[in-house]
Amino acid sequence: MLRKKICILVNSRANYARIKTALQAIQKRKKLQLQLVIGASAVLDRFGDLTKIIKKDGFKIVGKIYSIVEGENPTTMAKSTGLAIIELSNLFENLKPDIVLTVADRFETLATAIAASYMNIPLAHTQGGEVTGSIDESVRHAITKLSNIHFPATKLAKRNIIKMGENPKNVYLTGCPSIDLAKKVNPKISKNFFSYYGGVGPKIDPTKPYMVVLQHPVTTEYGSGMKQINQTIEAVNSIKIQTVWLWPNVDAGSDEISKGLRTFREIKKPKLIHFYKNFKPEDYLKLIKNCTCIIGNSSSAIREGSFLGIPAVNIGTRQKGREHGKNIIFSDYNSKNISRAIRKQLLKKKYKKENIFGNGNSGEKIAKILSKINIKVQKKLNY
Amino acid sequence: MLRKKICILVNSRANYARIKTALQAIQKRKKLQLQLVIGASAVLDRFGDLTKIIKKDGFKIVGKIYSIVEGENPTTMAKSTGLAIIELSNLFENLKPDIVLTVADRFETLATAIAASYMNIPLAHTQGGEVTGSIDESVRHAITKLSNIHFPATKLAKRNIIKMGENPKNVYLTGCPSIDLAKKVNPKISKNFFSYYGGVGPKIDPTKPYMVVLQHPVTTEYGSGMKQINQTIEAVNSIKIQTVWLWPNVDAGSDEISKGLRTFREIKKPKLIHFYKNFKPEDYLKLIKNCTCIIGNSSSAIREGSFLGIPAVNIGTRQKGREHGKNIIFSDYNSKNISRAIRKQLLKKKYKKENIFGNGNSGEKIAKILSKINIKVQKKLNY
Amino acid sequence: MLRKKICILVNSRANYARIKTALQAIQKRKKLQLQLVIGASAVLDRFGDLTKIIKKDGFKIVGKIYSIVEGENPTTMAKSTGLAIIELSNLFENLKPDIVLTVADRFETLATAIAASYMNIPLAHTQGGEVTGSIDESVRHAITKLSNIHFPATKLAKRNIIKMGENPKNVYLTGCPSIDLAKKVNPKISKNFFSYYGGVGPKIDPTKPYMVVLQHPVTTEYGSGMKQINQTIEAVNSIKIQTVWLWPNVDAGSDEISKGLRTFREIKKPKLIHFYKNFKPEDYLKLIKNCTCIIGNSSSAIREGSFLGIPAVNIGTRQKGREHGKNIIFSDYNSKNISRAIRKQLLKKKYKKENIFGNGNSGEKIAKILSKINIKVQKKLNY
Amino acid sequence: MLRKKICILVNSRANYARIKTALQAIQKRKKLQLQLVIGASAVLDRFGDLTKIIKKDGFKIVGKIYSIVEGENPTTMAKSTGLAIIELSNLFENLKPDIVLTVADRFETLATAIAASYMNIPLAHTQGGEVTGSIDESVRHAITKLSNIHFPATKLAKRNIIKMGENPKNVYLTGCPSIDLAKKVNPKISKNFFSYYGGVGPKIDPTKPYMVVLQHPVTTEYGSGMKQINQTIEAVNSIKIQTVWLWPNVDAGSDEISKGLRTFREIKKPKLIHFYKNFKPEDYLKLIKNCTCIIGNSSSAIREGSFLGIPAVNIGTRQKGREHGKNIIFSDYNSKNISRAIRKQLLKKKYKKENIFGNGNSGEKIAKILSKINIKVQKKLNY
Repeated sequence: MLRKKICILVNSRANYARIKTALQAIQKRKKLQLQLVIGASAVLDRFGDLTKIIKKDGFKIVGKIYSIVEGENPTTMAKSTGLAIIELSNLFENLKPDIVLTVADRFETLATAIAASYMNIPLAHTQGGEVTGSIDESVRHAITKLSNIHFPATKLAKRNIIKMGENPKNVYLTGCPSIDLAKKVNPKISKNFFSYYGGVGPKIDPTKPYMVVLQHPVTTEYGSGMKQINQTIEAVNSIKIQTVWLWPNVDAGSDEISKGLRTFREIKKPKLIHFYKNFKPEDYLKLIKNCTCIIGNSSSAIREGSFLGIPAVNIGTRQKGREHGKNIIFSDYNSKNISRAIRKQLLKKKYKKENIFGNGNSGEKIAKILSKINIKVQKKLNY
Repeated sequence: MLRKKICILVNSRANYARIKTALQAIQKRKKLQLQLVIGASAVLDRFGDLTKIIKKDGFKIVGKIYSIVEGENPTTMAKSTGLAIIELSNLFENLKPDIVLTVADRFETLATAIAASYMNIPLAHTQGGEVTGSIDESVRHAITKLSNIHFPATKLAKRNIIKMGENPKNVYLTGCPSIDLAKKVNPKISKNFFSYYGGVGPKIDPTKPYMVVLQHPVTTEYGSGMKQINQTIEAVNSIKIQTVWLWPNVDAGSDEISKGLRTFREIKKPKLIHFYKNFKPEDYLKLIKNCTCIIGNSSSAIREGSFLGIPAVNIGTRQKGREHGKNIIFSDYNSKNISRAIRKQLLKKKYKKENIFGNGNSGEKIAKILSKINIKVQKKLNY
Repeated sequence: MLRKKICILVNSRANYARIKTALQAIQKRKKLQLQLVIGASAVLDRFGDLTKIIKKDGFKIVGKIYSIVEGENPTTMAKSTGLAIIELSNLFENLKPDIVLTVADRFETLATAIAASYMNIPLAHTQGGEVTGSIDESVRHAITKLSNIHFPATKLAKRNIIKMGENPKNVYLTGCPSIDLAKKVNPKISKNFFSYYGGVGPKIDPTKPYMVVLQHPVTTEYGSGMKQINQTIEAVNSIKIQTVWLWPNVDAGSDEISKGLRTFREIKKPKLIHFYKNFKPEDYLKLIKNCTCIIGNSSSAIREGSFLGIPAVNIGTRQKGREHGKNIIFSDYNSKNISRAIRKQLLKKKYKKENIFGNGNSGEKIAKILSKINIKVQKKLNY
Repeated sequence: MLRKKICILVNSRANYARIKTALQAIQKRKKLQLQLVIGASAVLDRFGDLTKIIKKDGFKIVGKIYSIVEGENPTTMAKSTGLAIIELSNLFENLKPDIVLTVADRFETLATAIAASYMNIPLAHTQGGEVTGSIDESVRHAITKLSNIHFPATKLAKRNIIKMGENPKNVYLTGCPSIDLAKKVNPKISKNFFSYYGGVGPKIDPTKPYMVVLQHPVTTEYGSGMKQINQTIEAVNSIKIQTVWLWPNVDAGSDEISKGLRTFREIKKPKLIHFYKNFKPEDYLKLIKNCTCIIGNSSSAIREGSFLGIPAVNIGTRQKGREHGKNIIFSDYNSKNISRAIRKQLLKKKYKKENIFGNGNSGEKIAKILSKINIKVQKKLNY
């Protein structure tokens, strides 16, 4: 029997967490053959090379793409998209996938969508229909318009996709595979949990309260990153509890944020803040599950956070307009407002679990649909 | 006074006809500075290099982009998109435009949209909201989702754009600049009209009836081009009147069509068919204005054709679903059906003029809006 | 047993003829595994796609590279080199060859050399040490300086390579594989020899005398191509015998030459000249073996021509300084001088065979050396 | 008067030091117009963005190139070369330089040479003819074979270039502009010299003895970087004096070395070692002028080091075979041998100054030759 070849691209630590259970479910199905490709920041040591983690999880990597043009500014973000398209078209020509699946809304996601579209390969997409800030907002919807199969995470997202003119019969409400992982997370955090990941800064004691900070650049506000991160630094530093801080992703402006953090670290030598590059998906969930507050603008605070009921402070415009649970307090970039919001959340223990982004069986659903679906590449606006 | 820099990309002969009056209107406005860039097939001799025509029309070309990767297949179409993004991001970095305007729905159009989007340059788009076949259908709507300002050509297109979640206040019904040209076309065709353009084949006598054929590949049906063009050849060859045949554009599958045409030409040495690469926009309009029937799948038969009331036979799926006037008879790829439709149209003299795609002042409208508009790059789904 | 993987790139019709017997010999050796990749003009229909010919010859193609950026000018020649390097580095990463072999002196050859060098893959090179005009002269020697193993075709070339500072123990005088083919060529030309290849123009009668013309652009004289080809056209057209004319290769300026030829063809409709894209290597040899004179600037007139003793007229600077046999008369770009030289050669029947470029066992020699050699990538100037 | 446009690319901190006085001399000449372009690691913050330093030095930057593909492995080194060629060909098309000058032997240098060569722009080259290890050895000589004008730094290098077949009349012994800077260096080191540059680690007291370490990856030994740097770390750490350590350049393997250094820093928290990204050329000279020993494999120990008479320990193969003065002790990668050599050098105060690489007027010489020279692009092997 000829198996249907499903090619999936994992481009970052976040990507992997949001698709892992689908990868597992696809790998198990007899009718499907998984072609797992990793690229962009997922292959770079600077962002925590995922290669080993993915292999240890039992997946075979059939292709590796180096496509990030250094510079971390708007120009190189565009260039990286162009280079990724060139690389991916080679890859698809060799792999000849029956379906390509692309995750979320980043420039590598868009590059994947374009290469597949022009090569007449049916394109599946997760996380379509959601609303946020940053350039991701435009890119996400552009990818929806290039996609043949949609796997939205929420009811509202599904409705948005259909409103945008996609054929309802190709839109499947599956929830987000990240919730599958969140559901299974083992909350027990071991003593040497943190030492495994190295990083820089003083030791974090997992038996005592700690916060987690993760603040990415907002591409459409390029040039303000330094100012923005300094407000967050000031707020976090004013709260005197242990903090796990993750470096930002590879978007334009990442450099400014990293610089802000490095300068702060060298000059102030903060005694309660430890910096990490990357956690394995399950460990990241364990990390936030046990924290007292998530701070920054990561979608994980909203997505996995609402399911786990974790108090969170979202800063700035990056998640503006995103569907969310009760666990989030929104703040602007002002350090006083940020620290006030954090203090408020620290008084809370946990929020009630919400099922907005799925209830834990998304990966299975996605694999099942992919194995059954028979899709034409020619699309038509459905009004 | 600092003028607003409007960067516009002309990537093909069709592109130029559809934006020319806007270029003129922008050039005239004191508040605006036109940055005209040409690229893709517009700089290639094989498709009729537009450089001279554009300069003769009084425009200054500030940038030239070579981005077509040879091969004319789905893989090289993807690669060309990638290469164009890399080239354009350089260009935008140097030109620093205030607004980028991109025309229609081709891969160079998409490349322009992506480079501008990631570089935080507001993006304007013409021809959004229309419905067709081919990969252009997906790409057109994806570009809409990346665009900040929309200049749809028809009421229905405007409605579609708004339905897709664009903010109505950024959607301007301007009509298509190609209708501006069509309105002004001087119908008088001179004796040496055809000799100027060279081409290959027997002489065309402009005082006698002639047909015009223009059939492009359908990218989503890549591999069927030869079969499809042979049906058209058979049909056209069976009608014994003079024929002006234009070579296809640069899309995947163009090669197959060209091969079909060349083989036919070498073997059958048709006595009534002359092949041309390219006409100046105004001359192309004069050409179709005076012809007895347009055959193939060019959007000009639908767009300018409806305004000029020219009988036309549209073949296959490329224009499937496109809004159109009464002047079109649709046919599948069967030679008998095609020739039957042609014969039917040859009995018609002209159709009544229709104003679906504008009424002749689009260029002016676009320039005026561009000079007044003040736009933010951050978008948000408008539901 | 682990076989040594030899990756060889075939980038044009000429390339293939100059390496074919080596490919066969490598394929036969048990210790070697051939990884044949085709790219550049060898995959383009416009230049005569070699894919089918190569497969019919019994080779498996493991990779296909689209790297030609359209435009055929100095800028796109540079760009094509860059794109080829990007593509080839992907390929080498997947194929993991033990040795890469690159043929002659074109931009794809250089791209191959650079990708292999930076990826620490030992590089073998044929045709090093020869002297010519055009940019190929610089590029050929640059490739020598990147190569670890040298397979020069002539004694003088070998001496030149060693003089340039290469270690003599890595320089093997093997002769050129093209001579192997020339030695085995079956001179009998069948009646339908020409009809098989299509092309455009009047029929060629293989039983009557005919000339062969092949004139490529000289990149370092870019902009003079049209003037140069017109001189050749005038000269050839003045000699009233049948002529087989091959279209030029993909170098900068090719466009000008093609345009000159097409214009001549359309306007003058020459009754004795037929244009072809491509011949299979063996058929090309049969073609020149039976012709009365080779005209233009192809190295085949010098290389295979000297071995076969064919009268030839070399025009212009492209082969300037190249080692050659007695069969060549050199001419400048003046039509009178060209036609005088042709007439002189037409009086000659054949020249005596010369063994300058090998004696017919090069392919075998190359394969043997590749199977035995053990090479380090680190080089050192050998003075 | 039309000035001759000289386009020069500065791609790294080392590049800049080795060409700065030539830039100044060119800028002063009335007949010449300097077109200064920066790219590769010179525009990346991670390696110390040179933009500000260069502007402060009074130069206008006419182009900026982002061409580094992240990954720091052999594959991305090849890809970066390809991308740089694509970018540079755009730039040259816009700048239309009369001469391009490229410095030394890195992949950006090669990319520059290739773009200029194919675009028929005469190419000048500094540092040709020198002998070293690493892939730079092959690349340097390949660039010589593409260059039209040679500015070797030493007599031996000049002889090597001519031996390689270059025309002696295009080979000018100018010495290296880096020696011009070294000659003018003000040895006085101020109290806050180090604080200006930030970096990480304990304070360096410039009034007390300190060593300088700079160890780059050896591309042809990719994969051994970690092992190699650990030997150096061990040796340096065993010598208990203050140490200024500079991060490695962007070559394949840089990542391994940085990782080794970061790990060492985090775990051992060395009390005498401070890490820096970058010094201005003059400050770097001041730094080494005042140090007790240079350790690693930087060419500056050999080049400027011999002129300044600074004791140095060269480790490994990167400088293997390079012409050098008496100030160098060579060591393999063994920590014991390294520390033995360091101790030996620490007993030495200074070596006698040597003029191998120039005597301080190279920049002026280069500018003068460029203003007078009239060069053809067509080359020919000169044997």
